[in-house]
Amino acid sequence: MARRILLIVFDGLGDRPIKDLGNKTPLQVAATEHLDWFAANGASGLLDPIAPGVCPGSDTSHLALLGYDPEAVYTGRGPFEAAGVGIDIRPGDVAFRANWATVDLGWRIMDRRAGRIREGTDRLAASLDGLEVEDVRVMFRAGTEHRAALVFRGPGLDPRVTDTDPHEERARVQPAKALHPDAEKTARVLNAFQKRAHEVLVKHEVNRERVAASKPVANLVLTRGAGVFPHLSMFPAKYDLTAAAVAGVALIRGICRSVGLEVLDVPGATGGLDSDFAAKGRAAVDALATRDFVLLTVKAPDLCGHDGKPTEKAQVLERIDRELMGHLRAHLPRDAILAVTGDHSTPCERKDHSGDPVPLLIFGEGVRTDGVTQFDEVAAMRGGLGRIRGRDLMPVLLDLADRSAKYGA
Amino acid sequence: MARRILLIVFDGLGDRPIKDLGNKTPLQVAATEHLDWFAANGASGLLDPIAPGVCPGSDTSHLALLGYDPEAVYTGRGPFEAAGVGIDIRPGDVAFRANWATVDLGWRIMDRRAGRIREGTDRLAASLDGLEVEDVRVMFRAGTEHRAALVFRGPGLDPRVTDTDPHEERARVQPAKALHPDAEKTARVLNAFQKRAHEVLVKHEVNRERVAASKPVANLVLTRGAGVFPHLSMFPAKYDLTAAAVAGVALIRGICRSVGLEVLDVPGATGGLDSDFAAKGRAAVDALATRDFVLLTVKAPDLCGHDGKPTEKAQVLERIDRELMGHLRAHLPRDAILAVTGDHSTPCERKDHSGDPVPLLIFGEGVRTDGVTQFDEVAAMRGGLGRIRGRDLMPVLLDLADRSAKYGA
Repeated sequence: MARRILLIVFDGLGDRPIKDLGNKTPLQVAATEHLDWFAANGASGLLDPIAPGVCPGSDTSHLALLGYDPEAVYTGRGPFEAAGVGIDIRPGDVAFRANWATVDLGWRIMDRRAGRIREGTDRLAASLDGLEVEDVRVMFRAGTEHRAALVFRGPGLDPRVTDTDPHEERARVQPAKALHPDAEKTARVLNAFQKRAHEVLVKHEVNRERVAASKPVANLVLTRGAGVFPHLSMFPAKYDLTAAAVAGVALIRGICRSVGLEVLDVPGATGGLDSDFAAKGRAAVDALATRDFVLLTVKAPDLCGHDGKPTEKAQVLERIDRELMGHLRAHLPRDAILAVTGDHSTPCERKDHSGDPVPLLIFGEGVRTDGVTQFDEVAAMRGGLGRIRGRDLMPVLLDLADRSAKYGA
Repeated sequence: MARRILLIVFDGLGDRPIKDLGNKTPLQVAATEHLDWFAANGASGLLDPIAPGVCPGSDTSHLALLGYDPEAVYTGRGPFEAAGVGIDIRPGDVAFRANWATVDLGWRIMDRRAGRIREGTDRLAASLDGLEVEDVRVMFRAGTEHRAALVFRGPGLDPRVTDTDPHEERARVQPAKALHPDAEKTARVLNAFQKRAHEVLVKHEVNRERVAASKPVANLVLTRGAGVFPHLSMFPAKYDLTAAAVAGVALIRGICRSVGLEVLDVPGATGGLDSDFAAKGRAAVDALATRDFVLLTVKAPDLCGHDGKPTEKAQVLERIDRELMGHLRAHLPRDAILAVTGDHSTPCERKDHSGDPVPLLIFGEGVRTDGVTQFDEVAAMRGGLGRIRGRDLMPVLLDLADRSAKYGA
């Protein structure tokens, strides 16, 4: 009988030994009763999301954990972030990350983030969404704060264009240039779009309100990270699984949407430190009632890593253990295979991602237990799963769920 | 001084924890004194025959264990099974699995296995072997019971044709159709062969005997699983080794013949639960006297796994340990490197192959011992060999046998 699969990914889970914690990692010092119980009754190991020592992004790692080869399908952050903010992006579309910015009359940058604008960005975005430049249709959505996503759809587009964002204050905005002859049209359309957007934005009521409030206006859109949306096989068809995801962060939601996972909305799941982990756990268990596969991601540990706060990282891991893993220990269906891992390490001392492997545990009927009784980077080294790669995980889980097809006879 | 190599493969060796065995595997509960002795005096590890989580067939796995890349050389079961029943198959030949079947006058299936015919199949096969259709030579051999192998040799053949076996009783036999324009000739020859075979078979004395005994006649040949025989480098040349194999099962004998291993016949070695393991052990030790490399495979554990019989699996492993491994412990040449592993797991609860890794032990002069004192799936997790893949095994064994060439200077 085929089993269901619940894959839990803690963003930035792994860490390095920290002097102030007695040369232990935040996960080692955190009291994680429920994670330890799953480890004691399952199998542990180390996972290199991409390959040993390769420092992954959350996007490339999630692609690998879902069984895709990032080398073959990852075309930059822009396309996945556009999908994450809800643009119905399609293969061949060219997507950009965009910033609201403030420029002077000579298009010199006054503020690359338009005063970290928060209010009214949906209305600003709506005024640009649907513009047409030549035969190219423009799609535009606001993201969080000053961030936005821009997508071009039309014939003959190519992402090999330079950033219009000069990446520094006081610099003059650069017209986009083609880095390849095939991208001349895209550069021309991008430059024309930017002029049209400027004309629309300077007259926009949101900016009139900002002038009245003495705030920097959002009178230009800066672009970077152009990428073409790749042809991706859809996860449900690829693995013959009904599948859903519980994830708060736009980039991860975009990855999930892009491969055909149904992205569930969970009230209180913010992608922040204040996220309602219990609600996410309940949503995942509920989703498993009618799906073969559920992915649940939690962003909080990564935020503590980027902020360099090991004590906070240990504390949030304890809260995740209590609220999320405690719920799963009580309510996980008997026929489910559970995997818990990270998408990468975010060591507090480095304040950024690293290529250190992350711990992995797999729990469920038929899993060979291995004598490991704790869930952390060091205990996992002695686990029975050994050291595997992100792309190995889906085959391992499908096989334990009795869903693998025989290769040969 | 270069050493000799004995590679022992227990088919379907690995398993999953079984409730009735106290959440242990059959190999864990089996008393295997000699295997444990080899483990205690050697090195252990886990082996993924293909890759983590990939569920191998015995054919793809044996290819990998012998150092071949199944992705590059595995073209389906037909060609290797044809080699296994003794057809001298060559690159470019197209091979089919074949069944003796009973059809009515309208070629509707009465019995897909001709009453599981056993008697006289060699004589039936001889009447088809050597037929010529257009410029194609037909080779035909009987296998066990209703099974047979059909091979076409000639110019312009292509395996992309449909099965003539409708795969269900009462259905009408389908003419072969080309799935690709290059396969038109193969489909035409196959259909012509089937008519000629029918004409020969209806008049055959074996069928006259069956009619007299009121048994279903074998008056047609159903085909499926067409495959072209791949270009394979020959094992003895590839590794500069004289090499032989002791194996009872046609498919594995076929794999071995296909890569140039001399397949030894051992009286009493049946490929069944009743196989004479002691005779196989003696044959392997004898063969090592004049060869650099011997492969010995034992089918019995896989049969117990497919039947879902964990106690029988443990018992047959104990008998193998006593009769085969006991002999090797006493008689293995001092200068031999011994490896013991499985070609895949066949968990009794699943009753089919799985992608769970199998235990591996390597014993011999120069092997670094690792403190592991038992041979089973869980003890092997702590072994010094870590977790390697099937294709890594030959390089490891060649190196321990002091037969590796330096890569670089």
